[in-house]
Amino acid sequence: MTKVKKFILSEKEIPSQWYNVVADMKSKPMPILNPGTKEALKPEDLYPLFTEELARQELNQTDRWIDIPEEIIEKYKIYRSTPLVRAYGLEKALDTPAHIYFKNESVSPVGSHKLNSALAQAYYCKQQGVTNITTETGAGQWGTALSFAAKMFGLDLAVYMVKISYEQKPYRRSLMQTWGAQVIASPSMSTKAGRKILTDNPTYQGSLGTAISEAIELAMQTPNCKYTLGSVLNHVSLHQTIIGLEAEKQMAMAGEYPDIIIGCFGGGSNFSGISYPFLRYNLTEGKKTRFIAAEPESCPKLTRGVFQYDFGDEAGYTPLLPMYTLGHTFAPAHIHAGGLRYHGAGTIVSQLLKDNLIEAIDIKQLESFEAGVLFARTEGIIPAPESAHAIAATIREAIQAKEEGTPKTILFNLSGHGLVDMSAYDQYFAGDLVNYSLSNEDLAKNIKVLEKII
Amino acid sequence: MTKVKKFILSEKEIPSQWYNVVADMKSKPMPILNPGTKEALKPEDLYPLFTEELARQELNQTDRWIDIPEEIIEKYKIYRSTPLVRAYGLEKALDTPAHIYFKNESVSPVGSHKLNSALAQAYYCKQQGVTNITTETGAGQWGTALSFAAKMFGLDLAVYMVKISYEQKPYRRSLMQTWGAQVIASPSMSTKAGRKILTDNPTYQGSLGTAISEAIELAMQTPNCKYTLGSVLNHVSLHQTIIGLEAEKQMAMAGEYPDIIIGCFGGGSNFSGISYPFLRYNLTEGKKTRFIAAEPESCPKLTRGVFQYDFGDEAGYTPLLPMYTLGHTFAPAHIHAGGLRYHGAGTIVSQLLKDNLIEAIDIKQLESFEAGVLFARTEGIIPAPESAHAIAATIREAIQAKEEGTPKTILFNLSGHGLVDMSAYDQYFAGDLVNYSLSNEDLAKNIKVLEKII
Repeated sequence: MTKVKKFILSEKEIPSQWYNVVADMKSKPMPILNPGTKEALKPEDLYPLFTEELARQELNQTDRWIDIPEEIIEKYKIYRSTPLVRAYGLEKALDTPAHIYFKNESVSPVGSHKLNSALAQAYYCKQQGVTNITTETGAGQWGTALSFAAKMFGLDLAVYMVKISYEQKPYRRSLMQTWGAQVIASPSMSTKAGRKILTDNPTYQGSLGTAISEAIELAMQTPNCKYTLGSVLNHVSLHQTIIGLEAEKQMAMAGEYPDIIIGCFGGGSNFSGISYPFLRYNLTEGKKTRFIAAEPESCPKLTRGVFQYDFGDEAGYTPLLPMYTLGHTFAPAHIHAGGLRYHGAGTIVSQLLKDNLIEAIDIKQLESFEAGVLFARTEGIIPAPESAHAIAATIREAIQAKEEGTPKTILFNLSGHGLVDMSAYDQYFAGDLVNYSLSNEDLAKNIKVLEKII
Repeated sequence: MTKVKKFILSEKEIPSQWYNVVADMKSKPMPILNPGTKEALKPEDLYPLFTEELARQELNQTDRWIDIPEEIIEKYKIYRSTPLVRAYGLEKALDTPAHIYFKNESVSPVGSHKLNSALAQAYYCKQQGVTNITTETGAGQWGTALSFAAKMFGLDLAVYMVKISYEQKPYRRSLMQTWGAQVIASPSMSTKAGRKILTDNPTYQGSLGTAISEAIELAMQTPNCKYTLGSVLNHVSLHQTIIGLEAEKQMAMAGEYPDIIIGCFGGGSNFSGISYPFLRYNLTEGKKTRFIAAEPESCPKLTRGVFQYDFGDEAGYTPLLPMYTLGHTFAPAHIHAGGLRYHGAGTIVSQLLKDNLIEAIDIKQLESFEAGVLFARTEGIIPAPESAHAIAATIREAIQAKEEGTPKTILFNLSGHGLVDMSAYDQYFAGDLVNYSLSNEDLAKNIKVLEKII
C-alpha cells in the first residue's frame, strides 16, 4: 500500500491573496486607542511607526481579501508552498484513531513561519523608500526571518534580542549576523527605555515587552526608519494566513477537513495563520471546527489573563490594545520557548476568545519537551520549543480520541524547527528543566498595574 | 513575468531504483583486496562487517539498476523528493549568463543528503535481524542521519565522532542524542585503536580514519552488531544516486540539461550521488557533461594524492582499496568542513578520475566561506561548510562563463545546511579562520607510508 505522506502545492497554486478575518467577524475587535486622547486610532496615527500600507492593513475591518504583491510572491517561492504532512509515525506511536496532519513551516530557510510576514513588511518598507528598520526578537525566530527579508529587499536592520535568548541561543544571533543584521541584547544601554530598566534591575533577563520598547525608541530617533513587529498586530496575522490558505487546499488534496486546529501561542501570529482561513467557514457557513491556542503554563494570558486595554510594550510606547493580558510589566519565567514569553495577545484573537469562537489551553514546559522528543523520534523533525506546545496539545487530543474511540482529524502548525535550540534539548535530557507555574499572588500583582490604564 | 523557482516531483515520481554506475564503466575499478592474502574480496568476506545485501551491493559490477525496497521509499517520503532550485538570486549577484541550479538536499530532517544511505543501511540491518550498529562521523552529518535512521528502524547505535567536531559542533551531538544514539568522542579510550593513538599523541584532535577504526573495532566485538559507513564505499554511492536520478527528471521539467555538475568532495557520497546518473549518458551516449569534485585545499587527495592501494582507516582494519589517497595516517588540518577531512576517495570515483571522466579542483577555506555567505544572502539558505566548497566551485564556473560570454547550465548539489555550524560562520566573520595548504614535504611524508602496502 502506498500512502501519501506530504501534500505540496505547485508554485502556481500559492495563494495570491491574504485573508482578513475581521471582515467576517460579527463582533469586531474593540478599537485600538491613542493612550493620550483615548480616541480610536486612524491609520495616519500609525504612519510615524509603520509604512502607510501596513498601517491601513492594521485597521482594515472591511476588505475580506488583500492582494499579495507579486514581488512578495516571488520571494515566497524560495520556500512556499510548505508541505502539509500526515503524521503517520506519531499516530502509530500514540495508537490513536485520530488522523494527525501538520503544516510544516519549518522548511523556510530561516526555520519558521516568521518569514511570511517578514518578507511582506520588508517589501512595503522598501516600496515606501524606507532605508532602515528596527525590531525585537524573543527566541530569535522573528529576528532571523527579518534579517533575511531585510537583506532580500536591501534594508538596514537593527534587532533588539531578549537578553536571555541572546545568551541561550548564540546560533540565532549568528544567523542574523550572517544575513547582515545588527543584533543588540535587550535591555541595552542604547535606549532610554533600556537604561531605565537596567538601572532599576541590572540583572533583568529581558522580555519581549522591553525589547519592543527599545526597538520603537530607536525607530523614532533614526531618520527614514520604521519599526516592525513579528506578532500580535493584525497585519502580521493577515500575512500569516498564507499558512491556513495553503493548508485548506492541501487538506482537500488529502480528502479531509480538520475537526480540530492547533497552534502554539505567543502573540498569535502562527495560531492566527493556520486558524483564520478555516475559521471563516465557522463564521460564515456554520462549520464547527475547534481552534485551540496552546500557551505555556508560565505565561498564561489567554487562560488566566484579563481582557482589558493594555500597552503592547513594557515602557508604554504603543497604542492601547484591547486584549487578554497579564499586564505589560509582566516578566515571564525563563522558559526555552522564548517566542511564547509575551504578556498579551493580539486584538483579533482576544475578541475571538472572548466570544468563545476559539479555545485556549496551557502546557507545562516539561510536557512540551516530552512531546517534542516523541515527535522528533517518530516524524524526524526536531521541533522548536514553541512548536512543541502545539504538539503537546495535539497529543492530548489524539489520546482523547483514542479514549473516546472517535476518529478525529487534527491539524496543527509546526511553526518552526529546533535545530538552533539544541541547548534546550540538552538541558531537558540532563534533567535541568523545570515547570514554572504562576502563583495567583504574582498574577494579581501584575494585573494590578492595569488599573491605572482605563 | 512568473518564473518557476523550484521543481518538485510528486511522491509517486520518486525513483524506485538506484543506479549502479560500475555496470556502465568500461574500465572497472580494480578489485578491493584482502590485506592478508592480497586476493580480491568476495561478498562473503565482508559479511562479518556488513549485512549480506550491502556486501553484495558493494561488489556488484553488473546490475545497472538495484530496486529500492518499499520500506525505504516510505521513509524517503518524509523528505523526498528534494527540490531542484534555480538560483536566480546568485545568478543576479554574479551578473552571469550561466543558469545555476542546485539540488537542495538540506531539506531532509537531519539537514543533509546523508539520510539517503542511512535509511537504506539501517533497513538492511533490521531486515537481517541485526540489533546494534556502529559508525563514525566527521562533521556530524552522517552520525545525525544514522541516528534518525536507526530510531526509525529500531536499532541501537553507537557513534564515534571526530573529537574536533565533537567540540566544535555540540549541537550535532545533541541532535544525535535526541534521536537516541550514544555518541563518543574519537579517539577514545573505549577501543584498542583509540587507546594506541591517544597514548602516542594525547592531544590528537581525531580524524575520520581514526573514528572508522574505532567503530569497526566496536562492531567486531559486539554481538549481533554491524558497522556502517557514510561515504567512500560503493554501496553508499549507490544509495545516493537517488539525488541525481531525481535531478535528472527535474532538469527535464526545467527544460535544460547541465553542462557542468559540481559536488563537494570528502569521501565521495554526495558528489557520486548527483553525478553518476548524469555520467551514464557520457558513458553510454557520448554526452560531454563535465563533472567537478570540489575538495578542500587542506585535504587534497584528488588533486595531489596518489592512486594506490591503501586502507580506509587509520589503524588498518579495512580491506585494501584502490584509490586516490594522501596515506591513511594523514591527519588533516582543522578546517570547519569536517566532512571533507578524509585521506582517501572511493574506488569508483578514483577510477573515474584516473580515466579523466571527471575533474577535481581544490578550494581554500576562506574562499568556501566567502561563497557560503554570498549564497546565504542571495538564496537564503546558509550552507554547510562542506557544501560551500561546491558553491565556491560553481561561482568560479559562473564567473568564467561571464568572462567567456558563454551561457552554461550549472548544477550543483547543496548537500546540507549550516544551521548547526554557526560557530564556524562566527569565526569567519571574526576573522579567525585561515587557509591551510599542505606542504610538499608533508605530502611526501604521508604518502611514504604507502610504500609498505603493496
